[in-house]
Amino acid sequence: MITKKVNLDERELPKAWYNIMPDMPVMPGPTIHPGTGQPIGPDDLAPIFPMRLIEQEVSQERWIDIPEEILDIYRLWRPTPLYRAYHLEEVLGTPAKIYYKYEGVSPAGSHKPNTSIAQAYYNQKEGVKRLATETGAGQWGSALSLACKLFGLECTVYMVKVSYHQKPYRRSMMQVWGSEVIPSPSDRTNAGRGILSRDPDSPGSLGIAISEAVEDAATREDTKYSLGSVLNHVLLHQSIIGLEVKEQLRKVGDKPSVLIGSCGGGSNFAGLAFPFMPEKAAGEDIRFVAVEPTSCPTLTKGVYAYDFGDTAQMTPLMPMYTLGHDFVPPGIHAGGLRYHADSPLVSILHREGIVEAVAYTQNPVFQAAVTFAQVEGIIPAPESAHAIKAAFDEALRCKETGKEEVIVFNLSGHGHFDMAAYDAFLAGELEDYTYPQEKIAESLKKLPKVDIG
Amino acid sequence: MITKKVNLDERELPKAWYNIMPDMPVMPGPTIHPGTGQPIGPDDLAPIFPMRLIEQEVSQERWIDIPEEILDIYRLWRPTPLYRAYHLEEVLGTPAKIYYKYEGVSPAGSHKPNTSIAQAYYNQKEGVKRLATETGAGQWGSALSLACKLFGLECTVYMVKVSYHQKPYRRSMMQVWGSEVIPSPSDRTNAGRGILSRDPDSPGSLGIAISEAVEDAATREDTKYSLGSVLNHVLLHQSIIGLEVKEQLRKVGDKPSVLIGSCGGGSNFAGLAFPFMPEKAAGEDIRFVAVEPTSCPTLTKGVYAYDFGDTAQMTPLMPMYTLGHDFVPPGIHAGGLRYHADSPLVSILHREGIVEAVAYTQNPVFQAAVTFAQVEGIIPAPESAHAIKAAFDEALRCKETGKEEVIVFNLSGHGHFDMAAYDAFLAGELEDYTYPQEKIAESLKKLPKVDIG
Repeated sequence: MITKKVNLDERELPKAWYNIMPDMPVMPGPTIHPGTGQPIGPDDLAPIFPMRLIEQEVSQERWIDIPEEILDIYRLWRPTPLYRAYHLEEVLGTPAKIYYKYEGVSPAGSHKPNTSIAQAYYNQKEGVKRLATETGAGQWGSALSLACKLFGLECTVYMVKVSYHQKPYRRSMMQVWGSEVIPSPSDRTNAGRGILSRDPDSPGSLGIAISEAVEDAATREDTKYSLGSVLNHVLLHQSIIGLEVKEQLRKVGDKPSVLIGSCGGGSNFAGLAFPFMPEKAAGEDIRFVAVEPTSCPTLTKGVYAYDFGDTAQMTPLMPMYTLGHDFVPPGIHAGGLRYHADSPLVSILHREGIVEAVAYTQNPVFQAAVTFAQVEGIIPAPESAHAIKAAFDEALRCKETGKEEVIVFNLSGHGHFDMAAYDAFLAGELEDYTYPQEKIAESLKKLPKVDIG
Repeated sequence: MITKKVNLDERELPKAWYNIMPDMPVMPGPTIHPGTGQPIGPDDLAPIFPMRLIEQEVSQERWIDIPEEILDIYRLWRPTPLYRAYHLEEVLGTPAKIYYKYEGVSPAGSHKPNTSIAQAYYNQKEGVKRLATETGAGQWGSALSLACKLFGLECTVYMVKVSYHQKPYRRSMMQVWGSEVIPSPSDRTNAGRGILSRDPDSPGSLGIAISEAVEDAATREDTKYSLGSVLNHVLLHQSIIGLEVKEQLRKVGDKPSVLIGSCGGGSNFAGLAFPFMPEKAAGEDIRFVAVEPTSCPTLTKGVYAYDFGDTAQMTPLMPMYTLGHDFVPPGIHAGGLRYHADSPLVSILHREGIVEAVAYTQNPVFQAAVTFAQVEGIIPAPESAHAIKAAFDEALRCKETGKEEVIVFNLSGHGHFDMAAYDAFLAGELEDYTYPQEKIAESLKKLPKVDIG
């Protein structure tokens, strides 16, 4: 039986984002200024973010209207399809229903434009001329490049150096959209120069690239900084994913038993899952599963603590699961999701036992991706393939229990820019690596001394 | 003003393909057996095509029902969006309305699955176990790989050797979908071995790869051959594009003044244009523009003659515009559309003056592609960018005349696997090459001696 699309009419596109803040069962501690040890206020963030995003970061409003200008751009590819994977269910022999939400239909090929469009819009409204950001493999950098071009902003992307050289095609994509792309660490910032003086051959990391982009924004009047995950306002914008899924499932008369998303900084997972939190709170039997690689096992092996968001210790301190801000993921890891920490909201929900976490090595993840591509047609991004692997395992569990659960996962992007990783997998060249506990312990020793409460 | 999508409900997906044959103002001459010089019949084609496709190749029925199994797969990404490019119109300052049909939303990223799905279906229905085909840059090979995997067929793709090595990622895509991919010329076939013995370093060509795939199919009982363009049944399957556009334009109350498609073998151009031929015949003022590269100027510089479809002279002879069957396009050409000939149906309509043709060098084509990507968001395939360039020129003509014409072009695919070509363009490394008239004249001397009438 062939997989079928669950349609959602353009007129049914959600008109407001869902903000989980008023529904949080427990709130994360405040963001802390690393110098003063005091909670930071809007003025502390004003040099790097526009005021409207700072307001969204701390808003307690449950619904925040999506401006018409943003809806107009969303409508170029949204509502995105939800697929009932009949074919996959048949192949797995599961009694479970499997649904996947496909975010790869955006021009940048992932869910990231849901927030990049919003961020570029608010920055442009407040007179900002230029945005600086970081990117790893380039999914976020390309999404922000697209958004900046559409709103007439300049964009500079600090791209993790090893990816800049190994994955040139997302760099090309950013350049086609008019962005300046700089391999990080670079000599453009104090943070970059500091790293290079200690380690001229540094391959870079997201933590380092964030330091460079934040410094760039903080030191230029015309420039703000933009982050593609982790922060509350980013998760807010991604809620459009789950809101659409809710409406799509309503149309077919199904309710989710388990919602699954891959988890790097947390935005694609939260985008799918958070809009269903009120149902969970109201007593419905819904599980939330965040999936990560064993080579960057933040939720499964990290600690819940205050930490910096970047390597150079320039960002405020946030309460979150972390592997330590000087964590550098191994070069052999092909699957993305390499950030050392996780969104404070996702983190505290995991600590409270509301969000489960699971980690996989990369060969089973790529095997699931290839099976999925052969059955469903779409070649998934390696990041998204983590969610696929977890969905397979849930489906196989249902095969054992015989329960007809409803499994929903976020297929957050396509893998068109990751074919070298598929090549390596098919050639048997990928290593099943687990980041060693003792290296994590080493990094965690350098955590700032702030009581997490 | 932002570009807007013209919606078409899934229930409005066309249920039959449009066959132009009964509406042709003049018919091309018959396909000729190269040995006997006589028209070929179904039995001659039976070793390489399933009977249902042979029937479609010569059918005079105007409408051919699309089997439900094919519609089920089409529905995974169809109807595809038609966009009214308000933003682009503004940037070009044209009074014209510009629409583009976006076929890049298929899992293979182009319009090609419209026919690969149909071909795999009919082959599977008739008990075929394996398909052999050729591919240049890989757009067709990946589309057929996807289709074969969905219908449980094996698939072998002879891929032009220079592309096999220079464009590894479409090869990876085919392998992820389970196909065997062989660089052509290869030692697997007499045709390949013959070329290699004369020229061990041959970069290959579509004409050579076709010879290999046809020989593979003709010499194995379990195997048929599949072609991604040129033939009548391929153009038939692609008519779904234009049929949807017709319905979408009807919804917004517009009628096309000019329909534009890039033209390699002719299927994406014909897919958009042919369903509008009855309107043209009924007296409506519609122009049809086929766009090709100056480095493979089949319609603009070739001759209308009987020629082989392949280099090794294994295929039947067809009446078409051709550059000669031993044509090998220059390696510097980055824009695809490299086939030496064109669909017989498109060819005769061009000879009759019903289809116009225009050719561009590659720098202006890539410049148009980059402008398009920056304004509309989508990064186009270089093939499709030829249509964009022609649409720009039509829009600028309307700016001069002040006429509010309706320009519609087929954005047949995305450029995610062509970023190296964009890199080369941005670095100023692309040459504006025009295939020299004297080399064409040389190739044309080797045409078979068959009266074109």
